[in-house]
Amino acid sequence: MPAPPDLIAARLSRLRAAVAASNVEALVVSHPPNLLYLLGVSASAGLAVVAASGTAVLADERYREAFAQALAGVPDVAVIPVGVGSSYEETLAARLTAGAVRAVGVEAGSMTLGRAAAVRRALPDGGPVLVETEGLVELLRMVKDPWEQAIFREAAARLTEVAACILPKVLVGRQERDVAWDIEVALRHGGFERPAFETIVASGPNSARPHHRAGTRRIEDGDLVVVDFGGVLDGYAVDMTRTVAVGRIADDRRTWLASVAAAQRAAIAAAGPGARPSEIDAAARQVLTAAGLGDRFVHSTGHGLGLEVHERPTIGPRGDISGPVTAGMVFTVEPGVYVPGEGGVRIEDDVIVTATGVERLTGAVPGFEAHES
Amino acid sequence: MPAPPDLIAARLSRLRAAVAASNVEALVVSHPPNLLYLLGVSASAGLAVVAASGTAVLADERYREAFAQALAGVPDVAVIPVGVGSSYEETLAARLTAGAVRAVGVEAGSMTLGRAAAVRRALPDGGPVLVETEGLVELLRMVKDPWEQAIFREAAARLTEVAACILPKVLVGRQERDVAWDIEVALRHGGFERPAFETIVASGPNSARPHHRAGTRRIEDGDLVVVDFGGVLDGYAVDMTRTVAVGRIADDRRTWLASVAAAQRAAIAAAGPGARPSEIDAAARQVLTAAGLGDRFVHSTGHGLGLEVHERPTIGPRGDISGPVTAGMVFTVEPGVYVPGEGGVRIEDDVIVTATGVERLTGAVPGFEAHES
Repeated sequence: MPAPPDLIAARLSRLRAAVAASNVEALVVSHPPNLLYLLGVSASAGLAVVAASGTAVLADERYREAFAQALAGVPDVAVIPVGVGSSYEETLAARLTAGAVRAVGVEAGSMTLGRAAAVRRALPDGGPVLVETEGLVELLRMVKDPWEQAIFREAAARLTEVAACILPKVLVGRQERDVAWDIEVALRHGGFERPAFETIVASGPNSARPHHRAGTRRIEDGDLVVVDFGGVLDGYAVDMTRTVAVGRIADDRRTWLASVAAAQRAAIAAAGPGARPSEIDAAARQVLTAAGLGDRFVHSTGHGLGLEVHERPTIGPRGDISGPVTAGMVFTVEPGVYVPGEGGVRIEDDVIVTATGVERLTGAVPGFEAHES
Repeated sequence: MPAPPDLIAARLSRLRAAVAASNVEALVVSHPPNLLYLLGVSASAGLAVVAASGTAVLADERYREAFAQALAGVPDVAVIPVGVGSSYEETLAARLTAGAVRAVGVEAGSMTLGRAAAVRRALPDGGPVLVETEGLVELLRMVKDPWEQAIFREAAARLTEVAACILPKVLVGRQERDVAWDIEVALRHGGFERPAFETIVASGPNSARPHHRAGTRRIEDGDLVVVDFGGVLDGYAVDMTRTVAVGRIADDRRTWLASVAAAQRAAIAAAGPGARPSEIDAAARQVLTAAGLGDRFVHSTGHGLGLEVHERPTIGPRGDISGPVTAGMVFTVEPGVYVPGEGGVRIEDDVIVTATGVERLTGAVPGFEAHES
């Protein structure tokens, strides 16, 4: 279900205002998730040139019809074909030159050096200058509108149901990859379009690797098993992790579980409007440091969710937004502890910042709430 | 199954020779598929600095152990940690400065403007200069070594079996997305790690859209249904398309099927060593033009396959390699015809160029060979 035309129009309008307030006359949007957000079409190619006067969408024959249909009800948008004998860069350069644009913004976070060079080669001497911009669309995407918030609530509820279905299947003797496959089937049965990323099932010593995927190791009694999975619903990614204690686990591992759970509670409690990402991160980190585990927490506390599974705001010691979190932002809270060769723990939930506090989107999973609240 | 250490060593050695013959003293490899090819580790982050003297791999805590394990048996490689308080760009800049490198290559096809700017900010005045390079690793990847060729033969045979299993399930009344899900299950049962891309099931008028995915439309009698699917085995992507004629189809559609099949045969016949990609493309295009369908063939004839599902060489009117195809290259041959509002046809197989000709990797599918040979 793509975003309705009035929402597309509103997003384009907000971006036009942001461009008007910037140092460029027009912005070339090339990052596919940004195009999906602004135009309602998921395409591996396509460019949008957003200026005060309107938006030109450049599309080759594979996508031209899809863009034209999606944008039929949106004012001030024209779809420009990119011919088989031409290229996006050449078509863009011709359009910018014809429009007498002097300074055009490009997306520095996603445009490659090679593509920028190809555009520059196609521009005439004395023509428009490319100016690197940072996150103009991403900053808009960060605050979810009510239509997006409704998708997140539904997606998170479904992901919690998937967790309830599959966590009891983390059993002695099963291979990690079989559990991962169960999860992917459950995601489909739950109506998700696809997994949001390659499902992680990290058992025993593998759980000490934050980005282990799922291999042939068989789960053993006494293992910690980090299960990290996500799904995409209507284009939006939700993401959740639980650490399953299999059978009788050693006391120190029980301490890790309790400490990570406490760190997560502290970070969620700190995540209301007005908090800086670094403060939310520090809330989790302080709990683990107090437990003597600070140096075992080797990643950031969370990341934004949206049309990409990792987007702004990063919730870490070094954030990627200058201000505090605000109402409508959706992100993960996922502290972890990793002891190489032994094992690890990560607990992850998704939250949305509200006007007055924070709402946990993913919920308690029956039988796996011991380390939750 | 990652590439064995001696193969990793040989690949790094070839790249070192390519760097030595270029205008830079070292190359910064940042594109994840290139890192996987050179280092045997699939990671979302990580950098390799490849110079005549050896290779430095920069990795943060999430991936450091994985790189160290994979590279344990490979000579002249050091793994350098990127600390939690630092960044890849800062760690890279410090290493380049310490090594007194003057000109360092970066991958223009994948490095973003923003990352290049961050590296430049971290370098001292008068320090190393970043030089844009194009495809140094991709050109090595294009010619598959025997270890890779064996994977392709196995993967293509399995994909053909998946086709034989699922094409009979393209039946009147079924939704496109249910067929797509069948395919994804069959890919898993066939041992593939994951689908190579979002499976396409485009029925009836949807088949006129080359990149339609799979929606809720139910298949009808008389439909053409384009089924385009692929799987990843040991990291390598294979890709196949069949167009199923459901029930009694109109005569003009039968002509499209026959013409596309003839175009594919012509292109495969033209794909031996020494042929330029544009000549292979022209072989297909001429057949369709002679049938009055030249302007309905709106994309290139094929694309390279490997650790990415689209890589060099592009088999199109405009190629992305300067010379001819050579033994060991693997690519798709997939002409198509698309009539907006009515329907379309695409037939795709994977081939490998041999010393003396061309070998079709994906094979005939029982019951669906009418338009094949």
